[in-house]
Amino acid sequence: MENRRVVLASRPAAEVSEADFRLESGPLASPGEGEVLVKNLWLSLDPYMRGRMSDAKSYVKGVDLGEVMAGQTVGEVLESRHPGLKQGDHVLTQLGWQLFGVCRGTEVAKVDGKRAPLSYYLGMLGMPGMTAYFGLKEIGQPKAGETVVVSAASGAVGSVVGQLAKLWGCRAVGIAGGRAKCDYVTRELGFDACVDYKAGELHGALKAACPKGVDVYFDNVGGPILDTLLRLMNLHSRIVVCGLISDYSSAEPYGVKMLRSVLVNRIRMQGMIVFDWKERYGEALKALAGYYGEGRLKTRESVVEGIENAPRGLIALLKGGNFGKQLVKLA
Amino acid sequence: MENRRVVLASRPAAEVSEADFRLESGPLASPGEGEVLVKNLWLSLDPYMRGRMSDAKSYVKGVDLGEVMAGQTVGEVLESRHPGLKQGDHVLTQLGWQLFGVCRGTEVAKVDGKRAPLSYYLGMLGMPGMTAYFGLKEIGQPKAGETVVVSAASGAVGSVVGQLAKLWGCRAVGIAGGRAKCDYVTRELGFDACVDYKAGELHGALKAACPKGVDVYFDNVGGPILDTLLRLMNLHSRIVVCGLISDYSSAEPYGVKMLRSVLVNRIRMQGMIVFDWKERYGEALKALAGYYGEGRLKTRESVVEGIENAPRGLIALLKGGNFGKQLVKLA
Repeated sequence: MENRRVVLASRPAAEVSEADFRLESGPLASPGEGEVLVKNLWLSLDPYMRGRMSDAKSYVKGVDLGEVMAGQTVGEVLESRHPGLKQGDHVLTQLGWQLFGVCRGTEVAKVDGKRAPLSYYLGMLGMPGMTAYFGLKEIGQPKAGETVVVSAASGAVGSVVGQLAKLWGCRAVGIAGGRAKCDYVTRELGFDACVDYKAGELHGALKAACPKGVDVYFDNVGGPILDTLLRLMNLHSRIVVCGLISDYSSAEPYGVKMLRSVLVNRIRMQGMIVFDWKERYGEALKALAGYYGEGRLKTRESVVEGIENAPRGLIALLKGGNFGKQLVKLA
Repeated sequence: MENRRVVLASRPAAEVSEADFRLESGPLASPGEGEVLVKNLWLSLDPYMRGRMSDAKSYVKGVDLGEVMAGQTVGEVLESRHPGLKQGDHVLTQLGWQLFGVCRGTEVAKVDGKRAPLSYYLGMLGMPGMTAYFGLKEIGQPKAGETVVVSAASGAVGSVVGQLAKLWGCRAVGIAGGRAKCDYVTRELGFDACVDYKAGELHGALKAACPKGVDVYFDNVGGPILDTLLRLMNLHSRIVVCGLISDYSSAEPYGVKMLRSVLVNRIRMQGMIVFDWKERYGEALKALAGYYGEGRLKTRESVVEGIENAPRGLIALLKGGNFGKQLVKLA
């Protein structure tokens, strides 16, 4: 059996291109004592991967040139030399963009395919879901009756943020690109409103959608949309800085002009990385799986087939070309 | 007896000029039931006054054209028709830029000239001191051993922030304009270091002054200095957004580029207006007066004489021309 993997070939200066990746083949390693051999079934594609392609200081070290691209997968154990795992177990891994991989048994977590489809553990029951849960609950701290706005609202994180806001008694308003995504966000996910940022007049449209102003802005994009929101934030409101996708592919970051609103309105603005909540992942999984089991949490997936198409999938994601949680089906 | 007062004549588009003010004379009003007539002794000049000259939405309504410029004073009661106040009492007022004024007795607070010079109730024992106290303690939340950086370090707020940081066991690093202010901040106020932002190479100088990075940045200026600090902030650090003096006199606000640091370092950035802590002013006054009484809190004042020179004093303050707390001596 042969492994196939995608490695980082070069560091993009601004926009990512397919030439920044290289598909390689090679023999499979065998698991040593305490290790497992995993066959990856699903690879998650996420905006944070743009950061890993860079060597700028970030919250996690970047991928080295020639190294397998980083990423979470759900896979099946083919061979186990770890007492807690057996052949056929389904696991969440950090094996990255490859068909197979060997890692320590302690580095994977078992997932239950009977509770939910396996791919959901990369989306609403995985890191994106937990990001939404802790970011909204602990940093956004919404109170019932407040207005919560989330950007990239049809995406893996944004879709959960808005649904949780509704479950917790808030008005949920999304921002998404294009009519189809906005319709999905309101009709399928149950947000109160969704504004199409591509339609122009974002400020006026958001103002109309948030007649009582904005109490929590869950920001996945940064850039000019953040400036627009800063003009709409209420006194003592909160901004969850979860992603800056609008900057990820620019050579020069956008300059945010409306910081005056942070002072005038005493806004609390805070960065959010899900790893900080590691000790409480169990709490989030229980809550999210509970809502899902009751049919109160929905998701949508955007799937590309085959490891060779992963670069194309990430490039589309960074341009907002995905519709829902972006995945690569590997087997 | 005649009153003299400075009213707002026009709204500046960017930099304030003396032509934006008008000196007026007129008869003194008499106090009605429950009111007092006050002779102002000291007028406080503060950066927030630039905001009051504008009609842009802010945390307090702007001054109307033709209205007396807003401001705090310390004065002496000349005539009282309020049971809690008598002739000769010293009071803190909101009477603004004028020699005399009538207001309700409930709108003033008695101050004790034996405990500290009267002018100190406009500086380190007044709103600037309380801003420093609550901003640092409640938003900055410094822990002993951490590094606290404050801009406008020789000013009314900044000088108290750094001294409190030292009193609370932190490394205190100031930013000020010019060698003389920096020397004062380290030698007189006891900061560990002070960086001259006019000397160029601010990033390198701050990096050298903060070998363990920055845990709390108390920001009085915004603009490019904030961008520079964002590059030096530690994981889980805090930024107190207390003033944006660099923007107050620009037609176009500065665009802050390094917000990525808020995400990567999970920084908490929060706006601070002292009025939010009104119920706890007593606590701050007790602490600050206590430190002052023990000789552990120092201040420096920059005084202009005469109500007619108040506009010039404010203009200098907005350009960093003051050295310490800026006051106008009215009598």
